Amino acid sequence: MSILITNVLLDSGIISDVYIQANKITAVGPNLTAVADIVIDGTDKAIIPGFVNGHTHAAMTLFRGFADDIALEQWLTEKIWPQEAKLTEEDVYWGSKLACLEMIKSGTTTFSDMYFHIEATVKAVEEMGMRALISTGSLDFFDPVRIEACKKRTLEDLEASKNYNSRIQLAFGPHAIYTVSGELLQWVSKLAIEQQRLVHLHLAETETEVSDCVAKHGLTPVRYLHKLGVLSPQLVLAHCIWIDEEEIALLAAHQVKVIHNPASNMKLASGYQFKYEELKQAGVQVGLGTDGPCSSNNLDMIEVMKLASLMGKVWRKNPEAVSATSIYKAATQSGYDIFGLNGGAIEVGKLADVCLVDLKTPAFTPNFNFISNLVYAANGNHIDTVICDGNILMQNRHVAGEEEILARTAHLAYQLVAR
Amino acid sequence: MSILITNVLLDSGIISDVYIQANKITAVGPNLTAVADIVIDGTDKAIIPGFVNGHTHAAMTLFRGFADDIALEQWLTEKIWPQEAKLTEEDVYWGSKLACLEMIKSGTTTFSDMYFHIEATVKAVEEMGMRALISTGSLDFFDPVRIEACKKRTLEDLEASKNYNSRIQLAFGPHAIYTVSGELLQWVSKLAIEQQRLVHLHLAETETEVSDCVAKHGLTPVRYLHKLGVLSPQLVLAHCIWIDEEEIALLAAHQVKVIHNPASNMKLASGYQFKYEELKQAGVQVGLGTDGPCSSNNLDMIEVMKLASLMGKVWRKNPEAVSATSIYKAATQSGYDIFGLNGGAIEVGKLADVCLVDLKTPAFTPNFNFISNLVYAANGNHIDTVICDGNILMQNRHVAGEEEILARTAHLAYQLVAR
Repeated sequence: MSILITNVLLDSGIISDVYIQANKITAVGPNLTAVADIVIDGTDKAIIPGFVNGHTHAAMTLFRGFADDIALEQWLTEKIWPQEAKLTEEDVYWGSKLACLEMIKSGTTTFSDMYFHIEATVKAVEEMGMRALISTGSLDFFDPVRIEACKKRTLEDLEASKNYNSRIQLAFGPHAIYTVSGELLQWVSKLAIEQQRLVHLHLAETETEVSDCVAKHGLTPVRYLHKLGVLSPQLVLAHCIWIDEEEIALLAAHQVKVIHNPASNMKLASGYQFKYEELKQAGVQVGLGTDGPCSSNNLDMIEVMKLASLMGKVWRKNPEAVSATSIYKAATQSGYDIFGLNGGAIEVGKLADVCLVDLKTPAFTPNFNFISNLVYAANGNHIDTVICDGNILMQNRHVAGEEEILARTAHLAYQLVAR
Repeated sequence: MSILITNVLLDSGIISDVYIQANKITAVGPNLTAVADIVIDGTDKAIIPGFVNGHTHAAMTLFRGFADDIALEQWLTEKIWPQEAKLTEEDVYWGSKLACLEMIKSGTTTFSDMYFHIEATVKAVEEMGMRALISTGSLDFFDPVRIEACKKRTLEDLEASKNYNSRIQLAFGPHAIYTVSGELLQWVSKLAIEQQRLVHLHLAETETEVSDCVAKHGLTPVRYLHKLGVLSPQLVLAHCIWIDEEEIALLAAHQVKVIHNPASNMKLASGYQFKYEELKQAGVQVGLGTDGPCSSNNLDMIEVMKLASLMGKVWRKNPEAVSATSIYKAATQSGYDIFGLNGGAIEVGKLADVCLVDLKTPAFTPNFNFISNLVYAANGNHIDTVICDGNILMQNRHVAGEEEILARTAHLAYQLVAR
């Protein structure tokens, strides 16, 4: 299939045509004369790469707003874990469908997920047309029997991944250093390097995690991973709020990637002094994520960009820090780079994972600086059209089947908490 | 005119009908049989009070995105002030129209403004159907000639306000303690008490303001106002980021009101430790605002609620702080109370300033907790219908004349910076 988008604003400020063939951008320039199956008038619209949500637990849409404004431990032990224990594959399928719908409606085309029943999430992503990295959350609680069970499940996922759609990559998901043994972390890391897969791990999310790690291992989290020998270019760390300068240097030296989740970190009161500028300066690739829709409580990457920028400025007392341009790159180009995807820019040869933004709105009026308006004035609802892998997933803000997804998931969520 | 809204979700979680006659809510309950000029089906919608934006400079929409990510002094002296010096009454009129459009489209029905050429803003508000408190920003720079000019302008505003539409109140707007003399502050305060008008003043926005005040007057800002004798129930202070416990007690004792502007305070790196819980505990009424659309960079009160809550939780390391319910009240009920309006709740006898929220969206799916979803998952674009003073200003997200406002203001803004 081919798509021609005419007279659309590029993020450089230039108005251009953009031509898509199969799943790639094949021409960008004025007055393209290419013949296309579908022509979209891009007048009063801008084209941007689809956002990459670098860290989420998609199916937790089912628990959105179920338990807010309470302390983390009570939230987990009294509210979330008892509900999660009841989740079936069908629940995860519909929860993932709802998450995909929400992401498409706010301009995200790729996400990195960690959860359970991942075959259900894989199916949902295949149907919804998005791109994803999907990992089973492995928790062994330092128990030898569970360590073996986690290894077995990981190998089963690897086998099953041979049948994944080309838009989906399997990743490995050791949950965190306080739920996963050093043995499993080392085993997963070795397998990931052999298989050229990414490892998705929560790290240094809370102050307690750091003090517990120091108490148990005599080392802070990044130093502990270094000692285990698992820092590698395959490793993608979510959070990293509580790290120091030497740890940043270690991450840089081993080409470890970091995903910043400001909405979750703020709402759960995990911390706010994320060292965005220092990580960038050290050469660490930093992407952005929402975290699960139960802790943040949506999947809107435009909101995440604004939060990351505003939070990054104010704790440093520096309005020049974490600029709109820089954080826009983190939410797009860096995400594609981190996940090994040839996208993130409106350029010939890049993946046709793109969004059109509606400029005929107050947020983009006047439009002195498109990226500034996108980051600071807009929100996910300003996305009008979404194309992923060369296919149109949303046009004029409508996604095929959205009414059914909303109705089914609401019903399922109410049933789930009642049963 | 009468409006019947059927089967709509109240913020209490109950589904009800709501009946509006003239500018008041006159019945709330199931299966109302009242005859109405207009019937709105509220199925899959919730009804909430219109938001009150407690602090803005509406016409600055014209400078949205014009100068971001730069230091405050450079922003003001090199970018904003040279542009503001060129503003005509027509510019302010169209900038205010754009601001009204943006506020209506995100559910705000009342705002408190401080700017120049206020007759233009008054006209815009009259036409757009909103409710507003409007003040001329007075700056005397401690110059006796300018002090007299400010007094004269204030009295002229007072005279002109006799002809204002009943939806519009004049307020007095001494800009800040670093731009306005003690003499003018005292004169304005006295006049405000006599005339039962509110005084709109920026205070304790930055650390520099506090240290400068201490250097000049030997007192912190609230103590300085106290010494001047201008703390009164008429006084509404924007910001108050940098105040201490004793100052909070002073504000409470004199029934001074405070407007919190988290987006602006974060983006301009002014500060983040806003003492929301302490102010509430002391009995101070706290409302929310966006600040000008050039520093924040939009007028979305739902976004402001989320920022206030998340920021308030994380700096305190307490996920229970600044709850969704509390901040929702700050953006609604407290706003009405602060500005002396009998609204802010869906109850018989209250002003018919209300919004319908579209629940058929991912942000409200599932809908375990409507207020939590509104504050943490939604954004201004989820507002579907807006009624102010009993008149429909927006339905199905369309506001009469919006296309012209967008086109005119964009054109004007580009011309303005070019001339």
